[in-house]
Amino acid sequence: MTVFLKLDDIKKCVQLNEQLIPVIEDAFKNLADGNTIMPPIQRLDVHKYNGETDVKAAYIEGLDSYAIKIASGFFDNPKLGIPSSNGMMILLDSKTGVIKSILLDEGYLTDIRTAIAGSIAAKYLSNPDSTKAGIIGAGLQAKLQLEALKLVRPISTVFIWSRDREKLINFEREIQYLGLDIKKSSSIEELVKLSEIVVTTTPSKSPLIKSAWLKKGLHITAMGSDAEEKNEIDPDIIKKCDTYIPDSQSQTAVLGELHHAIKANIISINENFNEIGEVILNPALGRKNKEDITLCDLTGTGVQDTAIARFTFDIAMKKNLGTRL
Amino acid sequence: MTVFLKLDDIKKCVQLNEQLIPVIEDAFKNLADGNTIMPPIQRLDVHKYNGETDVKAAYIEGLDSYAIKIASGFFDNPKLGIPSSNGMMILLDSKTGVIKSILLDEGYLTDIRTAIAGSIAAKYLSNPDSTKAGIIGAGLQAKLQLEALKLVRPISTVFIWSRDREKLINFEREIQYLGLDIKKSSSIEELVKLSEIVVTTTPSKSPLIKSAWLKKGLHITAMGSDAEEKNEIDPDIIKKCDTYIPDSQSQTAVLGELHHAIKANIISINENFNEIGEVILNPALGRKNKEDITLCDLTGTGVQDTAIARFTFDIAMKKNLGTRL
Repeated sequence: MTVFLKLDDIKKCVQLNEQLIPVIEDAFKNLADGNTIMPPIQRLDVHKYNGETDVKAAYIEGLDSYAIKIASGFFDNPKLGIPSSNGMMILLDSKTGVIKSILLDEGYLTDIRTAIAGSIAAKYLSNPDSTKAGIIGAGLQAKLQLEALKLVRPISTVFIWSRDREKLINFEREIQYLGLDIKKSSSIEELVKLSEIVVTTTPSKSPLIKSAWLKKGLHITAMGSDAEEKNEIDPDIIKKCDTYIPDSQSQTAVLGELHHAIKANIISINENFNEIGEVILNPALGRKNKEDITLCDLTGTGVQDTAIARFTFDIAMKKNLGTRL
Repeated sequence: MTVFLKLDDIKKCVQLNEQLIPVIEDAFKNLADGNTIMPPIQRLDVHKYNGETDVKAAYIEGLDSYAIKIASGFFDNPKLGIPSSNGMMILLDSKTGVIKSILLDEGYLTDIRTAIAGSIAAKYLSNPDSTKAGIIGAGLQAKLQLEALKLVRPISTVFIWSRDREKLINFEREIQYLGLDIKKSSSIEELVKLSEIVVTTTPSKSPLIKSAWLKKGLHITAMGSDAEEKNEIDPDIIKKCDTYIPDSQSQTAVLGELHHAIKANIISINENFNEIGEVILNPALGRKNKEDITLCDLTGTGVQDTAIARFTFDIAMKKNLGTRL
């Protein structure tokens, strides 16, 4: 029996809130502990239509199910009036491979677990009294990352910047409900100078944040770069900052900001960094003092998908949602 | 709108017959022509339960949809009274990434497209007047490969062998309906000596067919090896045979019989072989004369999955089958 869950059912089970932080923290801890089988991301590009599909998967030892996640991004879709992102998750029984559930979440669960990873990065790496956030980019993840930050830090002011002025104005309107003091920055440099926590959420292919703009105490979460060609952070920053933390070094060395630092010979491919799961297990590995400059490099991991798919399925079963196929 | 197809609907659309041969041939031709984006297989092992999940995917230029296929094998399942194999295919719109169809085929379409690849191997590589087949292994694919051979060659006698005597006797009973003269071989050596076409369908981890047993005119299709550790054919045979044809050299060099020949330094990693799609495009690249010894190495490719998922979906739409989700 396979349980089929549609987006409306899934939204009844999962929203962006504090409840998810320990769920995703556990996933990262398992990844750090080596209790996980997480194969490399499978990526298929449909160049002709400016599209890509990524498949992520992870089995966590001891859990009775694991997920395979299909996420697509077709970047010309907005011209057709449909969202760029799409996707689904499949939950399999760890003992038999039987398909327990198909979660046709249209990318919703990926958006949520990505935002929660942002919460976790800020929780362990930013200064606890940070009130000023800077958000670069004005898409859905810009909004969710800001919401996610508010779960862990007393944010009262947000500086926003986007390459696209029209999107920025829409974004400003969209985030009114958060009750923050919203300031449109005239440049990224200005945004970085005024913020205590900066989150980059763009598909940029060249660095947005320059090394020269770094200042004491700053925390940066770079979550836009999840593909070889993407790059939001000056590679020098990885060397210059006090603490660089990847979600998964095997992924950031290929897809994330680290990739560009390795390519530019700024960081050796053999250098070993603590991953976010190790910091959660031992917070002393994160920020050491108020003046540290910290950088978290998020590419999105299969363990997060397995964690959120399992969490959703369990709640759906309790609520008796979904269709038995 | 996503169309959901269950196994019973899928079986109404697709059976193992001649109709599928050009469908899968086209897929191989596209692969050979380089009109394909086919990422490496993503494999996730669940060692604890003797299970594995493979994800295969391929986009063929110009086609309006592409498939991602999840196939699992949990080899202790029969002890629980359920099949080892399971799986599903997902058909995505090439232009938008929107999920057009979910085919919960439980591995059925993989079984069929694998058998059809066996037909194609025999069609281009075995002697046309071959009447004697040898089948090594006694599982579902043993039966399907034999059925598939009958589509392209005038098989009248089949020699069968399995490590497991009980399974062999069941297999003998199961294939009665094909109306062949069935002979149980006392050894693989005997089977190879008496057959014109041999198909290996086992999960063996050490060679079953020895190089010393080769004889003029023999064609072998090795379809069991689809993982690093699997090996059915003495690696020397790849050097000794007149024509070695992989389904996809990038896959057989890692997962197939070729892998073991490279590891044993019998074949250079730089040697370039014609793939089955190139032979279909130009049959002169296949068997050149009656006495040639030919070997086809099948690991199973994403293009086959895309081809059969599209074929199934088109027929299901014509028959108005499935559930709109």
